[in-house]
Amino acid sequence: MSADLPLSTTQRTTLHRLRERGRADRAELYAVLDVGLICHLGVIVDGSPVVLPTGYGRVGDTLYLHGSSANRALLAADGHEICVTVTHLDGLVCARSVFNHSMNYRSAVIFGTARLVTDDAQRLAALQAVTEQLVPGQWDHARQPTRKELAATLVLELSLAEASVKVRTGGPHDDDEDYDLDVWAGVVPAQLMFGSPEPDPDRRADVNLPEHIKALAGHRRGS
Amino acid sequence: MSADLPLSTTQRTTLHRLRERGRADRAELYAVLDVGLICHLGVIVDGSPVVLPTGYGRVGDTLYLHGSSANRALLAADGHEICVTVTHLDGLVCARSVFNHSMNYRSAVIFGTARLVTDDAQRLAALQAVTEQLVPGQWDHARQPTRKELAATLVLELSLAEASVKVRTGGPHDDDEDYDLDVWAGVVPAQLMFGSPEPDPDRRADVNLPEHIKALAGHRRGS
Repeated sequence: MSADLPLSTTQRTTLHRLRERGRADRAELYAVLDVGLICHLGVIVDGSPVVLPTGYGRVGDTLYLHGSSANRALLAADGHEICVTVTHLDGLVCARSVFNHSMNYRSAVIFGTARLVTDDAQRLAALQAVTEQLVPGQWDHARQPTRKELAATLVLELSLAEASVKVRTGGPHDDDEDYDLDVWAGVVPAQLMFGSPEPDPDRRADVNLPEHIKALAGHRRGS
Repeated sequence: MSADLPLSTTQRTTLHRLRERGRADRAELYAVLDVGLICHLGVIVDGSPVVLPTGYGRVGDTLYLHGSSANRALLAADGHEICVTVTHLDGLVCARSVFNHSMNYRSAVIFGTARLVTDDAQRLAALQAVTEQLVPGQWDHARQPTRKELAATLVLELSLAEASVKVRTGGPHDDDEDYDLDVWAGVVPAQLMFGSPEPDPDRRADVNLPEHIKALAGHRRGS
């Protein structure tokens, strides 16, 4: 799919309220996904919803999740409907009334049927995407998976065909009569920040901090 | 329930892998919940899981979620099993092998049947908890809800009886033979940070930034 194609318009990806927060282009979906570090995976296990945080990666219009091959929630997801949500909190919106408080955020919600990936080349590409999502440049820096490690890793794929994106920006929207109140109003911005890398005490003394990890520090990312 | 009572030991709150990451005390559940800003709510809508980010608040052993009284996912949750997950990302764990990469995090996963709160006093206490969760001190600062606003707000309660907490801290755990590799290993810490409050351009000129909002800036929080 092309980045300027519209997102899906199924019933569950159509916003019924606060439509002004909806975003329609696939490019906006990619933008939310590509700066994220974790997603929340929703899957039905024994008839009940389970929501688990996990890493992810994107290749074109496919999202990849990975985990241990003993991971019960991931195993339960294969062949079933799942929902994956990525949320970035951008600020607390303080209004003059409690009722009009809000948050600034960017979020993507993806629906679809999860499939276990069995092809080894595709599994490797998926793991590369998951690794690079967290630390760009790390796939070529660290030791790549052995055949045994690959066998111990479960990879799920989810099409990005059915997704919605919501974004809220800006200040509070108060009721007209509240603007006279003696109450501060505005936005407290929030963002995930990386601190200074902390080397493993057991490291080899001659291994220096590589540029691609140094580049993370202080960098603004989604959450 | 008391904070030093154990968390639940149902099948779905018992860790089957990586048991060393499990936490057993209710105090650790409270600790994860009380520094959070958003949760991810999992609910089944038309047979499929839906995961939505939303604010929350805690009063004792009850978690409260709120939303518009037209919110379809919240309405669908009433009387049904839901799952609420709160996750704080604390760092990227860079290992010498791709396989041993990990994240440091604190997460709480709560299972239970959601109930619409209909008692007005309880609804008000719930909204106070949700507001104070985001900006402590804001409930007494801003205008409190009118009867009409209360009627437009849906409040769900969820017992904290069935919950699990997972925490990962520390550096990478590499395979013995990988410690000789020419690969940097360590942790890149991550945390949600608040920036300087940005006043609403439409504010009254004589309303100053209150201390309880000033106190947020730069403060470390969960995500």
